[in-house]
Amino acid sequence: MPYVNIKVTDEQVTKAQKQQLIEGVTQLLVEVLHKNPQTTHVVIDEVSVDNWGHNGRQYSETKKQNA
Amino acid sequence: MPYVNIKVTDEQVTKAQKQQLIEGVTQLLVEVLHKNPQTTHVVIDEVSVDNWGHNGRQYSETKKQNA
Amino acid sequence: MPYVNIKVTDEQVTKAQKQQLIEGVTQLLVEVLHKNPQTTHVVIDEVSVDNWGHNGRQYSETKKQNA
Amino acid sequence: MPYVNIKVTDEQVTKAQKQQLIEGVTQLLVEVLHKNPQTTHVVIDEVSVDNWGHNGRQYSETKKQNA
Amino acid sequence: MPYVNIKVTDEQVTKAQKQQLIEGVTQLLVEVLHKNPQTTHVVIDEVSVDNWGHNGRQYSETKKQNA
Amino acid sequence: MPYVNIKVTDEQVTKAQKQQLIEGVTQLLVEVLHKNPQTTHVVIDEVSVDNWGHNGRQYSETKKQNA
Repeated sequence: MPYVNIKVTDEQVTKAQKQQLIEGVTQLLVEVLHKNPQTTHVVIDEVSVDNWGHNGRQYSETKKQNA
Repeated sequence: MPYVNIKVTDEQVTKAQKQQLIEGVTQLLVEVLHKNPQTTHVVIDEVSVDNWGHNGRQYSETKKQNA
Repeated sequence: MPYVNIKVTDEQVTKAQKQQLIEGVTQLLVEVLHKNPQTTHVVIDEVSVDNWGHNGRQYSETKKQNA
Repeated sequence: MPYVNIKVTDEQVTKAQKQQLIEGVTQLLVEVLHKNPQTTHVVIDEVSVDNWGHNGRQYSETKKQNA
Repeated sequence: MPYVNIKVTDEQVTKAQKQQLIEGVTQLLVEVLHKNPQTTHVVIDEVSVDNWGHNGRQYSETKKQNA
Repeated sequence: MPYVNIKVTDEQVTKAQKQQLIEGVTQLLVEVLHKNPQTTHVVIDEVSVDNWGHNGRQYSETKKQNA
């Protein structure tokens, strides 16, 4: 019965990359814990770069500075 | 003090259906656990069909195949 | 594809009450959104009364005051 | 290693307010628990007023009534 | 900036299996999205079999029936 | 309507520190977003050091190495 939630910043993740994440995480749970893929759910949340903070700063600002 | 988070795929859930979910879950917590509705919060997340994976596949692909 | 997470304070919720919550939420999703119970998951988290804050105070303190 | 998730209703939270939340929460964790800001992440979710229920009602309806 | 939350039923997951999950998910995010492992966090929640519901039933009951 | 979830590693957080976190986060939401403390909930999760991964490793192992 696994449920996996992946949160990443919203920076042009493609449909194919999402499929790779879903497939990869599901396989990992099958291999490591022998889980049934039929009861394995993966939800990907894409978070705006204004809404993700790291080290006390908005990621949108950190990106600008590093650009 | 209940907090309930409902995640469903984003497939045209209407405003009235959301109200029914909020009302139904709140009532259930009142009936089963005698919780106070004043401190009961329900948050509904609608997840893109590309971002929900089940059985190792994107739900958008599973839907297409079943259509 | 619903996933529901119910957070309540850890105050002697019985196994039978948990079953009622799981059944009730699943039925609600079947009735309101015509979801398949086979792909509906419900997870209940019981949170220590020291770890839940409301109105700026630990719930363990609010309970003591109201007792 | 703190991870903080702040959920608020989606009611015109500005970029500057988000920065204040991120900074304030990070500082709090440094002061109270001596956490390292480098491993402290804050994610803000803005939830549609139709999708947040309190006291058994959609917040969009409660707002209308109070207006 | 990924944050991953893995929820599984609490059924004797070993420390080594947890390490494999953490390592596997982190590598997947590096490979698929080129994320920095330094800002990648993984949290595993082990949920009591009484607290996980699937198909409208507690998983503890489903297990008993299948045993 | 804010709901805040704080996840930290389970390393002897005291009851008084939890109260400081709850009070501090609630005040921040009052000051920055003018939220009502009556509808503000804070939930603290303490995560086992075996269950938190950072940089592809269990935090229990990183701690041992740094000790």
